[in-house]
Amino acid sequence: MITRDACAAQDARDPLAPLRRQFDLQDADARRIVYLDGNSLGVLPRAAAERVRTVVEREWGAGLIRSWNEAGWITLSQRIGNKIARLVGAGADELIVADSTSINLFKALSAAVAIAKQRSSERSRIVSERTSFPTDLYIADTVARAHGLELTLANDGDVTRHLDDRVAILLLTHVHYRSGRIHSMREITAAAHQAGALVVWDLSHSAGAMSITLAADAADFAVGCGYKYLNGGPGAPAFVWAHATHIAWMDREAWQSPLPGWLGHADPFGFRPDYQPAPGMLRFLCGTPPILSLAALECGVDTVLAVEGCGGLDALRQKSVALTELFVELVESRCAGHDLVLASPRNPVDRGSHVSFAHPTGGYGMVQALIARGIIGDFRSPDILRFGFAPLYTRFVDVWDAVDQLAQVLETGEWRDDRFNVRSIVT
Amino acid sequence: MITRDACAAQDARDPLAPLRRQFDLQDADARRIVYLDGNSLGVLPRAAAERVRTVVEREWGAGLIRSWNEAGWITLSQRIGNKIARLVGAGADELIVADSTSINLFKALSAAVAIAKQRSSERSRIVSERTSFPTDLYIADTVARAHGLELTLANDGDVTRHLDDRVAILLLTHVHYRSGRIHSMREITAAAHQAGALVVWDLSHSAGAMSITLAADAADFAVGCGYKYLNGGPGAPAFVWAHATHIAWMDREAWQSPLPGWLGHADPFGFRPDYQPAPGMLRFLCGTPPILSLAALECGVDTVLAVEGCGGLDALRQKSVALTELFVELVESRCAGHDLVLASPRNPVDRGSHVSFAHPTGGYGMVQALIARGIIGDFRSPDILRFGFAPLYTRFVDVWDAVDQLAQVLETGEWRDDRFNVRSIVT
Repeated sequence: MITRDACAAQDARDPLAPLRRQFDLQDADARRIVYLDGNSLGVLPRAAAERVRTVVEREWGAGLIRSWNEAGWITLSQRIGNKIARLVGAGADELIVADSTSINLFKALSAAVAIAKQRSSERSRIVSERTSFPTDLYIADTVARAHGLELTLANDGDVTRHLDDRVAILLLTHVHYRSGRIHSMREITAAAHQAGALVVWDLSHSAGAMSITLAADAADFAVGCGYKYLNGGPGAPAFVWAHATHIAWMDREAWQSPLPGWLGHADPFGFRPDYQPAPGMLRFLCGTPPILSLAALECGVDTVLAVEGCGGLDALRQKSVALTELFVELVESRCAGHDLVLASPRNPVDRGSHVSFAHPTGGYGMVQALIARGIIGDFRSPDILRFGFAPLYTRFVDVWDAVDQLAQVLETGEWRDDRFNVRSIVT
Repeated sequence: MITRDACAAQDARDPLAPLRRQFDLQDADARRIVYLDGNSLGVLPRAAAERVRTVVEREWGAGLIRSWNEAGWITLSQRIGNKIARLVGAGADELIVADSTSINLFKALSAAVAIAKQRSSERSRIVSERTSFPTDLYIADTVARAHGLELTLANDGDVTRHLDDRVAILLLTHVHYRSGRIHSMREITAAAHQAGALVVWDLSHSAGAMSITLAADAADFAVGCGYKYLNGGPGAPAFVWAHATHIAWMDREAWQSPLPGWLGHADPFGFRPDYQPAPGMLRFLCGTPPILSLAALECGVDTVLAVEGCGGLDALRQKSVALTELFVELVESRCAGHDLVLASPRNPVDRGSHVSFAHPTGGYGMVQALIARGIIGDFRSPDILRFGFAPLYTRFVDVWDAVDQLAQVLETGEWRDDRFNVRSIVT
């Protein structure tokens, strides 16, 4: 049996342990809170509190309108985009921060459809997975219908079987939001390309938790979220990436975003009635971005970039795997006999940085009972207990403590209490 | 000739003067800065600095994911929407905060087109003005083309002449971003309705500076900006409103936003693959909103709502008119002979809260020379000097001081200096 001391020893050996000091977790530690929901909302970087205060009081308060130039607000979306690029294997100016993941997906899919249609007008399908994050499917359906295509949904694990000459676009989540299953970007992109389809990836549950190699894997488009493993704060703006060949195509064809706005215009201060897209990824900008939220996002991205000094994203991934392996092993050994079934891939190569267990009836109550004990994970309807292990700040002792509490929740049966089974808005 | 003392006396009599204390302007006052760009970026409300700090440190930092419920993040867009509703003559739950003005316009126009098409499939036009804020035109063009309509652009003052049975939608800016001209919402809406068209209003340059009566004027849809007279901070989220009859129609028809996202789903935590729109205006939500920027926006909106205790929006408008009248009078008397021509309506009934003057060659240099002297207005290509008089915090002495400096800029001819004629990114 793995002891807490063994976990503490593992933390002591962890080369990434110093990165935890980038975050403001004293309060959580003092109250013995173990936060296993960084895959839903990353924790507050220390630098963000200070940075947002400066943006509010100095840049907005004192600098006022001048801060668009003098504080660099006007290029903030690009600057942060170029930082995120380093985390996902993208080149300079291939990635930009804007809007929300959903809205960026709308733009990216629209671009992908335009490219696919120019290559062949015969292809009639966007393919995705039935269990993808629902917004992705809603947006894909909207884009498909707007362009006379149909959205075809594959069952899990079955998506490559759908790759034929009817497919224009394959839309996939890199790491599944429930199960944590990783799709091999390299293999699936290659298979899709062989079938003549483009691939759009949603990196929301992988960016910032593992090495991603968009350009090397020849992906076509990608979008992702700023507030999960990138620690950008609640509702932080999202990002969108396109492969260099597609950027060149958009420039050559003067391709217009379906959401053309002043900030994505070639001459944003010319105030011309006709839209001319800005070069490259700048065309994906639309309205004025929320600067306070952008400022926090930059601090969050910086916390992940700090791994560059301690072994890089491969070391981060290695720790993530060790954390999830430890969790699975401890749950299965200490919580046996309580009908918890691993709902994530058992092989860590196929698993992202969160782990889900299914329980036939008690998932909601168990998650609430854990929260009452300071162990914060989340419930995903109808039956999933989901635990995220953000490797930048989660310790091996945190995993041990979380399972220890889970074992107590199960042994006491307290999760059946009414007080843990009143549904709140967000679970 | 109006003296500075007379202006100071006017400030002393101003019933709205105490509202200025809601803002952090000591630093500006100490450095003798006169800020006349609140129509582009409103100044920092004192409460916002404190509130954003609380959201960052307490709600995000300590509350973490629980703050979606416990700090009310999940309903923030509605709560702020209901506050803005009180400023624009809208009923409860008719207005919601989301995304940017451009993206909200995309959604509102799409809804308006759906309604117009159901009423008559014959109508083929969206009509707007050639000099509208360009993004509005880009979005209108995109929506028109997506629905097989065409965008027709009227010359200024000529828009009602275009209202015939070919028109599905009229899209107008309530207060023009350059000239400050006000369109009569009541009269134009009535004329459009008589011609069988729906009207979509952009309130970016009027919300928060004057009384607006959307429901009473029977407007159809409206969008607006959070960071101008609403003082929501750089890039604050925007809002969208629909008339109650259209909300009922959208509910009845289960109308889907063209940007359907999880937060606008009838069951946002059901994570279902099929989109079912949330009731009412909630369907206009898409992705997760930027909470830090939303929090600041709420403080900004509160600064405007504070007029409810001092005569309301009518008193605010009265002061705005007095400020712009004073400015026009002082510029025309003290700056005569320098080729400045009023580019805003002379009759204050037709003019919003900003005033523009045109100069054939010197506009850019004059604005820069003024900024160097601490008078912050802005330049709008090719020839407009634009000055905003946010009535919540602009004093009559500010107007006097600004014109005094402008007179000196003109008399010295310093605006011709090279240093004032290097174009920066944002002007």
